[in-house]
Amino acid sequence: MADSLSRTLKEIKPLHRKAMKAARARQDELTKPRGSLGRLEELSIQIAGIKGRLISGFEHKAIITMAADHGVVNEGVTLYPQEVTAQMVSNFLNGGAAINVLANFVGVRVVVVDMGTASELLSHPDLICRKIAYGTKNMAQQAAMTPTEAVRSIEAGIEVVDSEITKGLDIVGTGDMGIGNTSASSAICAAIMSEPVEKVTGRGEGLGDEQLAHKVKVIERALELNKANPQEPIDVLAKVGGFEIGGLAGVMLGAAAHHIPVVIDGFISGAAALIATKLSPQLRDYLIAAHLSAESGHKVLLRYLRLTPLLNLEMRLGEGTGAALGMTIVEAAVKTLTQMATFSEAGVTKEKH
Amino acid sequence: MADSLSRTLKEIKPLHRKAMKAARARQDELTKPRGSLGRLEELSIQIAGIKGRLISGFEHKAIITMAADHGVVNEGVTLYPQEVTAQMVSNFLNGGAAINVLANFVGVRVVVVDMGTASELLSHPDLICRKIAYGTKNMAQQAAMTPTEAVRSIEAGIEVVDSEITKGLDIVGTGDMGIGNTSASSAICAAIMSEPVEKVTGRGEGLGDEQLAHKVKVIERALELNKANPQEPIDVLAKVGGFEIGGLAGVMLGAAAHHIPVVIDGFISGAAALIATKLSPQLRDYLIAAHLSAESGHKVLLRYLRLTPLLNLEMRLGEGTGAALGMTIVEAAVKTLTQMATFSEAGVTKEKH
Repeated sequence: MADSLSRTLKEIKPLHRKAMKAARARQDELTKPRGSLGRLEELSIQIAGIKGRLISGFEHKAIITMAADHGVVNEGVTLYPQEVTAQMVSNFLNGGAAINVLANFVGVRVVVVDMGTASELLSHPDLICRKIAYGTKNMAQQAAMTPTEAVRSIEAGIEVVDSEITKGLDIVGTGDMGIGNTSASSAICAAIMSEPVEKVTGRGEGLGDEQLAHKVKVIERALELNKANPQEPIDVLAKVGGFEIGGLAGVMLGAAAHHIPVVIDGFISGAAALIATKLSPQLRDYLIAAHLSAESGHKVLLRYLRLTPLLNLEMRLGEGTGAALGMTIVEAAVKTLTQMATFSEAGVTKEKH
Repeated sequence: MADSLSRTLKEIKPLHRKAMKAARARQDELTKPRGSLGRLEELSIQIAGIKGRLISGFEHKAIITMAADHGVVNEGVTLYPQEVTAQMVSNFLNGGAAINVLANFVGVRVVVVDMGTASELLSHPDLICRKIAYGTKNMAQQAAMTPTEAVRSIEAGIEVVDSEITKGLDIVGTGDMGIGNTSASSAICAAIMSEPVEKVTGRGEGLGDEQLAHKVKVIERALELNKANPQEPIDVLAKVGGFEIGGLAGVMLGAAAHHIPVVIDGFISGAAALIATKLSPQLRDYLIAAHLSAESGHKVLLRYLRLTPLLNLEMRLGEGTGAALGMTIVEAAVKTLTQMATFSEAGVTKEKH
């Protein structure tokens, strides 16, 4: 394992118990029945644990949206052609995609990263180029990438988040774009969780029944051929993963190493979280699952990670769209903890039990 | 039925089908797989139907939080003493309550209305006084209010929302404060939906098992004694309701009459929606259920209203806290519809089927 990755893994520490206790104590003094803010209370305590203190909000917020292509599209597992990955990157840079609209609405900057699109993208001041290769190889015929590329993709993610931290970053969301990446994510799920492919494979952008059955077969073939070792997340990433998935795993690890909470988006971000938490089980405490995707494997994945999604809006778009909405809920939680009056401040009588 | 109420009921029209069709057509042209924004797409279409056109956002947003007291607290059905209602009204006016923090965070003004607290509240420039009486009577011993008071409470709600409309109002949320009002709401649910009291009665601010059993018995006694007619919502409101519940029903009706979407909060707002939709079944299409409350009757109530909550954050505070977060999701939906690029604008290839 390369230096920057192993250093990062060592820097991911347990949450700050004392700060969490202080947050819990304050929640119980706020002018509301105990526990009545439900998950907002839990979130505020988790954030206190991550930050090591009670904070009043997030000044700097970013969603890191990583794009890459997947050789497995040659097997006909998608409705959109491969060039859509690059077209959507342009759409991100021009501000026309769902993630731009939602991030803008909730006051979050979008960081667009080319982790490995198959096209030569025109350079753009807002595009971060960390291209590992021009798309992965077709996992149904060979390993998607080399082990070296897998590590490099994770380290690129760490570097991207490090660079955002220097600009200011108090909370980060993850997002993805990559035609074919639900196939890679399902393969990762099946490999790491030892689940049948069928159980963790969904309709992606909207496959019909026959197309879905074909997709399942292709993923099964990729897994049989590659024989990834479920105990070795880098091996799984290399054999059936994707560059944006490795990059997002790196973002999660790098953020946690700097005490930054990570709001993970949907299924693809979830697959990245599977890789990343296998590398650092401690990372899990830094993750917040923004939403339950309509992609069928996502529920299985979140249960495995013991994460309960904040939202269930039947979204299945990726890009970080769920993360953008989820970040607002997290910030709302933090605001209640620090801005609400206590019983004694407000002169409100406490409950009798 | 009094004039302003019956006039309002006549003004609630079916949604604008042509605008909804235009919204659906635009959703299908936006740069994302069809349907991939899930409930955001549905919401954007509903809002188009309510407004009669595609809008780009909500400039003026308010949550109307109505407070009142309940005579049934004499039966020992709550953990907090009655004076907490008035204390919390002060807390709202001083900006220290959860609703203030959340509304401020999402850019929504809070309108605080005294619909019938048991105390003489000090006058305050931001407090709207529409006090129908100093709390309801104890419904376990007599009708909570007279039929005239019930109608007046609804009409007061219509007047409050009318007055907010003159200040500017594009979307409204509902909120409540009233020690004892989960008992009144459970009684309304049981009466209107003909459900057993036990099924629609929850722990309120956090009752234990014995306290909950006692609360159920008190509500059962109130229903036996009062024999409210489930077909007559005003009769139900008068016999087992509350002034803030009547007021909120009025807010919903008044808003819908002016093509303003209504984001309803939790269990108490839901009880108000039961009353209001019995008066105008058409109203339902103007309602958006912000969240599923942890209060156990809420699920039954929403199913009866055929409303699917946007959020499930295990909140059970009232005040409009769920509505505040829900309004953000609604606005996010509206923004995606009008601000995202279409496939042709962005030069993105559409899917093949």
